[in-house]
Amino acid sequence: MTRLNRTARGLLLLIPSLMGTASFADEGMWLFNDLPREYLKSEYGFEPTEQWAHHLMRASVRFNSGGSASFVSSTGLVLTNHHVGADTLQKISTPDNDYYREGFHAKSASEEIKAPDLELNQLIAIEDVTERVSDAVIAEMSAAEAFAARRAAMARIEKESLDKTGFRSDVVTLYGGARYHLYRYKKYTDVRLVWAPESSIAFFGGDADNFEYPRYCLDVCIFRVYENDQPARVEHFLSVASRGVADDELVFVSGNPGRTRRIYTTAALKYQRDHRLPYTLDFLRRREILWQQFGLDGGEQERRARDDLHGIQNGRKAYTGMIQALQDPAFFARRQLEEEKFLVEVAGDPALKDYTGAWRAIEDVCGRRKELLGQTGGLGGRLFRIAQTLVLMAAEDQKPNAQRLREFRQSARDSLLQQLFSAAPLYDDLERTKLADSLALFVERRGGDHPLVEKVLQGKNPRARASELIAASDLDDVAHRKQLAEGGQEAIDASTDPMIQLAKAMVPEERRLREIHDELDEIERQAYAQIADAIFAIRGTNTYPDATFTLRLAFGRVSGYVENGRNIAAWTTAGGAFTHEKRHGGREPWKMPPRWHQHQRRLDPKTQFNFVCTADIIGGNSGSPVVNRDAALVGVVFDGNIQSLAADFFYSDEVARAVSVSSAVVLEALREVYDAEELADELGH
Amino acid sequence: MTRLNRTARGLLLLIPSLMGTASFADEGMWLFNDLPREYLKSEYGFEPTEQWAHHLMRASVRFNSGGSASFVSSTGLVLTNHHVGADTLQKISTPDNDYYREGFHAKSASEEIKAPDLELNQLIAIEDVTERVSDAVIAEMSAAEAFAARRAAMARIEKESLDKTGFRSDVVTLYGGARYHLYRYKKYTDVRLVWAPESSIAFFGGDADNFEYPRYCLDVCIFRVYENDQPARVEHFLSVASRGVADDELVFVSGNPGRTRRIYTTAALKYQRDHRLPYTLDFLRRREILWQQFGLDGGEQERRARDDLHGIQNGRKAYTGMIQALQDPAFFARRQLEEEKFLVEVAGDPALKDYTGAWRAIEDVCGRRKELLGQTGGLGGRLFRIAQTLVLMAAEDQKPNAQRLREFRQSARDSLLQQLFSAAPLYDDLERTKLADSLALFVERRGGDHPLVEKVLQGKNPRARASELIAASDLDDVAHRKQLAEGGQEAIDASTDPMIQLAKAMVPEERRLREIHDELDEIERQAYAQIADAIFAIRGTNTYPDATFTLRLAFGRVSGYVENGRNIAAWTTAGGAFTHEKRHGGREPWKMPPRWHQHQRRLDPKTQFNFVCTADIIGGNSGSPVVNRDAALVGVVFDGNIQSLAADFFYSDEVARAVSVSSAVVLEALREVYDAEELADELGH
Repeated sequence: MTRLNRTARGLLLLIPSLMGTASFADEGMWLFNDLPREYLKSEYGFEPTEQWAHHLMRASVRFNSGGSASFVSSTGLVLTNHHVGADTLQKISTPDNDYYREGFHAKSASEEIKAPDLELNQLIAIEDVTERVSDAVIAEMSAAEAFAARRAAMARIEKESLDKTGFRSDVVTLYGGARYHLYRYKKYTDVRLVWAPESSIAFFGGDADNFEYPRYCLDVCIFRVYENDQPARVEHFLSVASRGVADDELVFVSGNPGRTRRIYTTAALKYQRDHRLPYTLDFLRRREILWQQFGLDGGEQERRARDDLHGIQNGRKAYTGMIQALQDPAFFARRQLEEEKFLVEVAGDPALKDYTGAWRAIEDVCGRRKELLGQTGGLGGRLFRIAQTLVLMAAEDQKPNAQRLREFRQSARDSLLQQLFSAAPLYDDLERTKLADSLALFVERRGGDHPLVEKVLQGKNPRARASELIAASDLDDVAHRKQLAEGGQEAIDASTDPMIQLAKAMVPEERRLREIHDELDEIERQAYAQIADAIFAIRGTNTYPDATFTLRLAFGRVSGYVENGRNIAAWTTAGGAFTHEKRHGGREPWKMPPRWHQHQRRLDPKTQFNFVCTADIIGGNSGSPVVNRDAALVGVVFDGNIQSLAADFFYSDEVARAVSVSSAVVLEALREVYDAEELADELGH
Repeated sequence: MTRLNRTARGLLLLIPSLMGTASFADEGMWLFNDLPREYLKSEYGFEPTEQWAHHLMRASVRFNSGGSASFVSSTGLVLTNHHVGADTLQKISTPDNDYYREGFHAKSASEEIKAPDLELNQLIAIEDVTERVSDAVIAEMSAAEAFAARRAAMARIEKESLDKTGFRSDVVTLYGGARYHLYRYKKYTDVRLVWAPESSIAFFGGDADNFEYPRYCLDVCIFRVYENDQPARVEHFLSVASRGVADDELVFVSGNPGRTRRIYTTAALKYQRDHRLPYTLDFLRRREILWQQFGLDGGEQERRARDDLHGIQNGRKAYTGMIQALQDPAFFARRQLEEEKFLVEVAGDPALKDYTGAWRAIEDVCGRRKELLGQTGGLGGRLFRIAQTLVLMAAEDQKPNAQRLREFRQSARDSLLQQLFSAAPLYDDLERTKLADSLALFVERRGGDHPLVEKVLQGKNPRARASELIAASDLDDVAHRKQLAEGGQEAIDASTDPMIQLAKAMVPEERRLREIHDELDEIERQAYAQIADAIFAIRGTNTYPDATFTLRLAFGRVSGYVENGRNIAAWTTAGGAFTHEKRHGGREPWKMPPRWHQHQRRLDPKTQFNFVCTADIIGGNSGSPVVNRDAALVGVVFDGNIQSLAADFFYSDEVARAVSVSSAVVLEALREVYDAEELADELGH
């Protein structure tokens, strides 16, 4: 599954990025305001009109929780992956109503269930603000000063835009810092669940089949956006093609790829290979075992932990693929050669030759990042994060908007508060386990004698301390959080909540580390901006920036591939799903829901189920609509195959493929398996 | 389960150890030549006679693969844990005859199955050789010289003893280096499987119940030793008590605890807490996920990987318990205070005051060990280890016996060759996975640009390289191994086997690291010997040395405990096992074998199943006989409860307990469940 992994987002610092080599074949995550029109025309004889692109852009939806989606009806229906909706399915489920596992179907609008904290974004417009942002930084500034100046300029632009248009306004750093674009979004925060299948068919084959192909996953679910308590009326939505895709057909993916790092220098890639990825994988495996153990007894504990577990397993498998790609000496030999050649060109160009220092600067930053690995000012669990946000917010709110940490700027306030005041359930046992493990990890990484460790543990072992904190904190009460948020610094100072006090103890360290990382980010931003400029100068500007969890257009062919000498067909069928189940003796996780067996005879076994195409995707693209030349929805991206896991660092269309749910099986399943004829009819209308 | 974890033995360097504080209550793993007679007499009114001790010693058996056992008949029957026999059960199983899972019962001698590479040891005699070993070392020697001199002296003593008596002869380092004893063993290498239950009842509750209590595991199996192709005639064997144990009864455990580190200084414990254990746990979790993933598809792959997986899971749970114990600030505060007080006493004693340097020396060694973490000269998989052994052996054999690496000394040759020429099955897929993962880890730890990494990978990624090596190596052929072993250095030089060539590339690094570790070990040995002498001088010699995987006697009471305010009874019943199954809905791993359900009515539900006692045990004690005052076998140790996992560092009888299978359920199950009446009758006769 390729949801933008939340853990990964937290774990890996957002490093600005930019592609390093010229694109080829179907490569590219293109900006909607800079589409590869010429290539599409020459290669596919297809010319996207302004109208076509505008319609697709407006019909595309971003799940702020980390995924993509599309409008599929004038009545506000939103189609995404089950695993993108899983976070919400989990939050609205209870031991008695397990919508995640059992699925859900609202027979009428009144039965639709409101998500506790979803925010959906529809991209309205993009504006180039590079000059305004760049002009804020002058040559004499130190990295820290430049960072502050740039942050202030971005906050001003965003605030102005918000005040003027009322739209969510984000300045996005593109090409690693060579370009800045302002993205304006319409926000939807009243989002309700309409339909979801059982997890056993959505995630058929489980962790074993994840990132594998052929696949048979109905990894979709349907929400509806509301405005003023009424289904939103949506102008741009996608029609849904009943037959899915054909072999070799040209298709487009419109979604929000989370992050790629194709611009990375070899020094940066080596840092990933030898330090960052091993470190990340150690952490993911630690958490995977933790949640496995937590849910070992089955039942309710397993239910509580499974969304965390699946996210972690997905990340572990994805990062394992990434490190395998980087551990290939042949890859590095090629890359190093390319870089050396390019550096010769840069050094030979009088206008660019000073830029060679950028590569050295990045190498230095990697060295410093290595020293910081494992240092954190945070701890685990939602309660701690709530406390930390409250403590930071009270202090940040006293500063002018332009000087605040980015998540506390005024233009982002609504989104922040929605998360902070979410009424999503908090489970004591889960919170205790997360906090205890993060405390234990904190002891491991700092050493048991570190003064901050002593301060945090207060003479108790991590488990006892976590139990005490979770038992005594009132932050699970939303009203209490609101009081503290509204009371500002005074309320925080006066609070006796032990979790607030713990956050207070940690916050100075959090700030210290953020300052260092902000400075390193800035040095990298400046270096990558130079590298991007050098690329523009030498190779031209007909290129795309690294992914930034903003809307991009990718394209490719529906196309099978050869694996270990075996031909893998481009698409699978409903009949194949039953065969796949049988081949595994119907054991978990290859056990289809009872409903599928009951209605098997009604289902056309030839119905297209999943398919692969060569479009360039990455985590965050989960739920992206796949459309044909007519902009009709033919599928929903939900995964990449195992060979695509190197896509973070380079694109290949040899065997790497994006995996999608066919629109054909969505319609067929709604009608024949889920008795959801009306919902199927509503799609595309 | 508390088998001496093979992984752990490999992972954690064998650091000599010695208890740091005076023993109390039922603490202690006592030497058979220095039993706590006075304490037993005063506390329990029990005086072990020479005869009693001699009989128990001779009836005790060590599994060289990492466990304990006992003779239970004159006809050579040996009773141990199922999880100690698991390694052999796994090796003799095939996809069609899965003795590990389905159990085994030889109805006649001819049906008994020979283990491919077991060596069992029966302790014959102990001799104090401290003077001879210590005299070899003189004050002017450097640590490296002292180490060489000591190793040479030990090799000479062992060789002399072997030549004189024909018995396996090992010099054992006790009290961290303050004492050296020569242990002579009778060896049995023709060991055959007689009976084993299904793994589902032997390991009832699986990883979830492991180290938990109450428990219901029939964790036993029965082998028979042969001599000259006939069942061995055994003089000393234990009778088997049909009723098991009574509450508060005094019991004894005679077995081979693998390693404790109670002598450790606080600096050494902090190194464990902050560096060594986190490092070890990262590795174990990595391997746990690896084997889970390997077996995910179920079936044959799961079968091949499960013994590795269970061993790893057991280690992960044990080390997690250990690090939790060490992360308790209160523990360290106490320990530090004790150490400081003791140091004052040492410094105040003119005869001892020079010894205070020992504590500093250990701290320095810990600092150097930290730098070495993750550096290895080895790779994974049995094929690589075979190649490495062959390469090292060819070189070592050219040196005089006294100068060889310890595993190549003449007195250990037979045991070494038995492992090297074992015909236990080698599975290509398993070997490939192990080697590939260890290559990937080698890249991570050394960095992809390290010259040795480049040499080892030869331009391929770890998976491709591992596949190529496994496919091309002939070392899976025992005859080929014998040829290479017999051909000596010439054969190794001429070998074109790629695994031999890989081992040749790694061996210089292996030797470099061993030299460093040998030197550090020697520094520690000298330091701990001084600390031990200081303890003898100040506290007296009525104490026991840290565990060394040699025969020890522990003792304690059959006694329940209180956990979270709940009384945990000292023993469980057969009826309770069925209730436990029901409580978990009969899901895996709480699914009893069909045979148990079939014969449930024949079983007396009151039969004692498992019990706990306060005896001082640790990994390696698995399979140890538990005997009563009459030296009758009343149980078989198979685990410690979760609270006992700190036993590596300190003993407590508050809630820490050893967990045993009752002799009552062994007899009852043989008769009523397994239709093994004759075998039951043979036990104890």
